[in-house]
Amino acid sequence: MEQAKEHNWTVTVADADLPTARKKVAGHPQGKAAWLDVQKVNDRRDLIGRADVVVSLLPPHLHLEVAKDCIQLNKHLITASYVSKSLYLLGDEVRQRDLIFMGEMGLDPGIDHMSAMQKIHAIHEQGGRLTAFRSYTGGLVAPESDDNPWHYKISWNPRNVVLAGQGTAQYLQDGKLKYIPYNRIFQSYRHIEVPGLGKYEVYPNRDSLLYREAYGLEGIPNILRGTIRAPGFCDAWDALVRIGLTDNSYPIVDSESLTYHELVEAYLSPKIKSGSVRDRVAQFLGEDAESEVMHKLDWLGLFSKKKIALPSATPAVILEDLLLRKWKLRPDDKDMVIMQHEFEYELKGEHQLLVSSMILKGEDAVHTAMSKLVGLPIGIFVKLVMLGKIRSTGLQIPVRKEVYQPVLTELRNYGVEFVETSPQPS
Amino acid sequence: MEQAKEHNWTVTVADADLPTARKKVAGHPQGKAAWLDVQKVNDRRDLIGRADVVVSLLPPHLHLEVAKDCIQLNKHLITASYVSKSLYLLGDEVRQRDLIFMGEMGLDPGIDHMSAMQKIHAIHEQGGRLTAFRSYTGGLVAPESDDNPWHYKISWNPRNVVLAGQGTAQYLQDGKLKYIPYNRIFQSYRHIEVPGLGKYEVYPNRDSLLYREAYGLEGIPNILRGTIRAPGFCDAWDALVRIGLTDNSYPIVDSESLTYHELVEAYLSPKIKSGSVRDRVAQFLGEDAESEVMHKLDWLGLFSKKKIALPSATPAVILEDLLLRKWKLRPDDKDMVIMQHEFEYELKGEHQLLVSSMILKGEDAVHTAMSKLVGLPIGIFVKLVMLGKIRSTGLQIPVRKEVYQPVLTELRNYGVEFVETSPQPS
Repeated sequence: MEQAKEHNWTVTVADADLPTARKKVAGHPQGKAAWLDVQKVNDRRDLIGRADVVVSLLPPHLHLEVAKDCIQLNKHLITASYVSKSLYLLGDEVRQRDLIFMGEMGLDPGIDHMSAMQKIHAIHEQGGRLTAFRSYTGGLVAPESDDNPWHYKISWNPRNVVLAGQGTAQYLQDGKLKYIPYNRIFQSYRHIEVPGLGKYEVYPNRDSLLYREAYGLEGIPNILRGTIRAPGFCDAWDALVRIGLTDNSYPIVDSESLTYHELVEAYLSPKIKSGSVRDRVAQFLGEDAESEVMHKLDWLGLFSKKKIALPSATPAVILEDLLLRKWKLRPDDKDMVIMQHEFEYELKGEHQLLVSSMILKGEDAVHTAMSKLVGLPIGIFVKLVMLGKIRSTGLQIPVRKEVYQPVLTELRNYGVEFVETSPQPS
Repeated sequence: MEQAKEHNWTVTVADADLPTARKKVAGHPQGKAAWLDVQKVNDRRDLIGRADVVVSLLPPHLHLEVAKDCIQLNKHLITASYVSKSLYLLGDEVRQRDLIFMGEMGLDPGIDHMSAMQKIHAIHEQGGRLTAFRSYTGGLVAPESDDNPWHYKISWNPRNVVLAGQGTAQYLQDGKLKYIPYNRIFQSYRHIEVPGLGKYEVYPNRDSLLYREAYGLEGIPNILRGTIRAPGFCDAWDALVRIGLTDNSYPIVDSESLTYHELVEAYLSPKIKSGSVRDRVAQFLGEDAESEVMHKLDWLGLFSKKKIALPSATPAVILEDLLLRKWKLRPDDKDMVIMQHEFEYELKGEHQLLVSSMILKGEDAVHTAMSKLVGLPIGIFVKLVMLGKIRSTGLQIPVRKEVYQPVLTELRNYGVEFVETSPQPS
């Protein structure tokens, strides 16, 4: 809004709920709140028609209709979501009309693309040859607000936290493709050292191979994208996976009247006959009764005799409901986002390792680092488009210098900064 | 066809491929071959309109359109497939028109329903109270044709063999619901003793709870449906699941040019760095290099340097292709179907255990026990309907005495016989 004032722009916030839109505008003279049911084609087109640049923060499946309107009405479009196949298919039309549709302009995807590309291009320009690229992101809790044994609180979509890793992770190692099925993903973590913070765990994402071409890394022998978690998280999450509590495919019978204790018991093998449910879980997991993993499960309340009180809920929905309460950011809690890239390359016959890290903490449970990092790149890019500083057209993700350079530069004004270190390659 | 001759009926075999239909009719004077593209509504209705009873052996998703035609044209309908929800919704209309639509009239589902219901009704009539019902079926290879370490050959849908167990098994034990996620299903087998054959393994099916009401077993504390396999099968199949080779959700990159050896290597954890692929698999599985499981994996050729030679294939498709060759019935091989029910009940204060078993061997790779057991119940039931011996109407599965009694009686003429034993309850 400050930028809007400087340039005398108007920012229209549209929402299906007018009070929500009004709250976001917060009486700013450059702001306007609009009520919009996005399914109402004429209303939507009317609003889009009056804009210069459209930002869609809608659920991803709704972007396509907005994108079609933008083409018809000659408007630029920006989203923070993954670019879907159907959106990609609009690319030619977008370019023909001299428009720019920028997708994946958030944190991850978004800042990861930009910060990685800046280094990749710099290494290429020096004459370096990349042999490994690894990129990790984690939305965590800041150490000063960390008061639970999982060292985790939820700062983004909780459903995605529960379903994380479902599918098969694919990545490249020593020139060979690796596949890690879901039942082993949280056993397949590696350790990283984050400058100033210490050791973290990283488990592999599904999509490590996705950006090889977009990044110009065809033929690179090592590529991995991963998610950062605190030490000890992955082993304990793996226990939840093994028990079966992350499954979202079927409802638990009578979930409303069951207790957490009874739910967990329902997953215990009939082969282990004696002992409390907690003891039998420890035995099944091969954990000592007093292990860190068991302590984390205890803390979640999985062995409590409290009622689940959710009708026809899947295991994943039950777990999500529990985690939303246990891993909730308190009003004064600060979240923390870590992003770290590892670049290994050959330069003048020498093997180099460059680690580039960004750490950002939120202010409180509302002004989170997560929301800042998802929102700022969009805002900055809108300004660049409005000022005519973006020449290229078509459907893009932010991997071009023309885009990442000014966005990363301006992000620094908001404390979003990558620090580079060069540890000895292992 | 013999029955058709006796009663002067005509059997019309319709197929999208006329030679196939002709081959099945095999020149029988009571038979007629018809060419039918089932998607062509008018052709389909024309053919249905000229029949008295319609048997649909189409892929399950195509039954619904045939069923709607049958309602419109007042024809009875019989299938061996599971009754879908959309088919269930037609039940009222079927009854109003005095028609019978019989689903699940094959082996499993089919003969399992009928043979179980005969005993359940008999126990109830004696005044017995059932405390446990377990029902197991397996399509196997006859001992005399068993020449591989898995003791298995494929006599039915190979895709279903590979995808077996995917989902979560649910069953009742001591009045409590049990959930077994896919990653533990093949570790959760039990042993059974089949009279005359010896020990087998049984892993739990997904659908154990499905028939509680249909069988009149509401409130029974123990209910389990399972699949029978030879001893040692489940541990070895569990190894395939753990490696990740039964996944059908994504294609393997360059599957055409990879070898089986390379495919398996792609699933190996990078944490295990030394040793051959076979050694690393053994280490990952926690198996001795010379164990039965490793021997079975060897025999499949998973460590061979042969090319997979299938483009864009999922792990499950690659495995299916391999198993189709390794587990193929040779022309003279006999398959074998085992079905076994366990009934535990209280009668006059005494705990009783009754085991009812059926074993049928095929003649050769074409005239399999599997095809006989899926086809015979349909044929017998068609005859009963044609002779007006079925009074009840509506959409059914074969759980009524009026249906199972004459079908089971006639099945005995074809060697399909259940033998009862009463071992000491454990």
